[in-house]
Amino acid sequence: MAPHPNTSVATKLPSPRNSTAERLLVAASELMIERNSIEVSLSDIAQKSGINSALVKYHFGNKDGLLLALLARDAATEVTHLEYLLAQPITPTAKLKLHIAGIIKAYFQFPYMNRLIHYLLHESSTEAADEVSKFFVGPLLDFQRRLLAEGVAAGEFRKLDPVLFYTSLIGACDHLFFGRHAMTRATGVGPVTDKVCRDYIAHMEALLLGGMLATNKEKAIAG
Amino acid sequence: MAPHPNTSVATKLPSPRNSTAERLLVAASELMIERNSIEVSLSDIAQKSGINSALVKYHFGNKDGLLLALLARDAATEVTHLEYLLAQPITPTAKLKLHIAGIIKAYFQFPYMNRLIHYLLHESSTEAADEVSKFFVGPLLDFQRRLLAEGVAAGEFRKLDPVLFYTSLIGACDHLFFGRHAMTRATGVGPVTDKVCRDYIAHMEALLLGGMLATNKEKAIAG
Repeated sequence: MAPHPNTSVATKLPSPRNSTAERLLVAASELMIERNSIEVSLSDIAQKSGINSALVKYHFGNKDGLLLALLARDAATEVTHLEYLLAQPITPTAKLKLHIAGIIKAYFQFPYMNRLIHYLLHESSTEAADEVSKFFVGPLLDFQRRLLAEGVAAGEFRKLDPVLFYTSLIGACDHLFFGRHAMTRATGVGPVTDKVCRDYIAHMEALLLGGMLATNKEKAIAG
Repeated sequence: MAPHPNTSVATKLPSPRNSTAERLLVAASELMIERNSIEVSLSDIAQKSGINSALVKYHFGNKDGLLLALLARDAATEVTHLEYLLAQPITPTAKLKLHIAGIIKAYFQFPYMNRLIHYLLHESSTEAADEVSKFFVGPLLDFQRRLLAEGVAAGEFRKLDPVLFYTSLIGACDHLFFGRHAMTRATGVGPVTDKVCRDYIAHMEALLLGGMLATNKEKAIAG
């Protein structure tokens, strides 16, 4: 199947099955991991992939189109995981714990993902931000909405507003990666290692499920 | 006392008592609130304040120096509130609740604050990021560290890692303002109103203190 050129990032994303487009995405992804930065040029990507940089324009319209396609590729994998998780024969509480670990591990495994999301949502075009909302924010919110409803129906969770819940969970996970850099400057806090991720997963599980009160819970909340 | 010119944002911040510098900060702040954006030019600030834009260079070095001084001014107010809060004759739990409300209200009252923090930490110079860490991240983390220790000593809180706690609380509060814009695109979620802030304060209080489990807490966590 011949690929169709994209003139705007808002047009349909190119099929990841196209091998040239796919190789460009793989090269971009590898460069971002190597450099720990999303600052990669089209000529770097061309050199790494052995594909003429003019073909980036042909497949993705421009560099932001390529970045958007890369995020879409990784987000699609994550959304598949969410659907799989929801269908598991385990309790909603166990699903939530796996979900928390899944978000933090995905950010850790694809360190550029968090930065791409922020870049595309806040510094790129309105069309790119709309796309990110559509393939990333929307499905994630929808998954959490269903998981919360399932938990309430099972008598495991109290009733929570899904949008507020989404904001607190995603914000907290996001900040480990987006905010950590700032924290290391002033306070001697180290970088995000594998151990920090595991500690943060345990922290978030315990905090969301059990709260932070030691004893005499209801009285303290009322006070 | 004559003001001294700043050639770099990393040099000492100008005294807010200097009336010309102060008027420039007030003008910048008002413009950012009016426009709901941190995109204000030096000539806009000059026009609004009635002060020649050459004086911005004299007092702040450059525009980022002015943005940094504006954030420092607002952060100083918040840090004063934190010290005041810690000294109150109320329980650590009550202090935590006031702290959660304080963060969210500060972001809501100064809508540019969140964006300034992100801009200065991630898109401005290393020196600016260091300054933000020093006058904002550091004192806030220190306050939470002391509040958590006080809560543990009083038998109200279980032991939590302060850095992980900071990350989850600040990340969750930050995301209401930084992430909301993206959520409204795909999902029909509305903007952050006064009511949304109050709802989020109640959500965060209940989530952090009591967790989200309905019943049979310990068993579900273990499962």
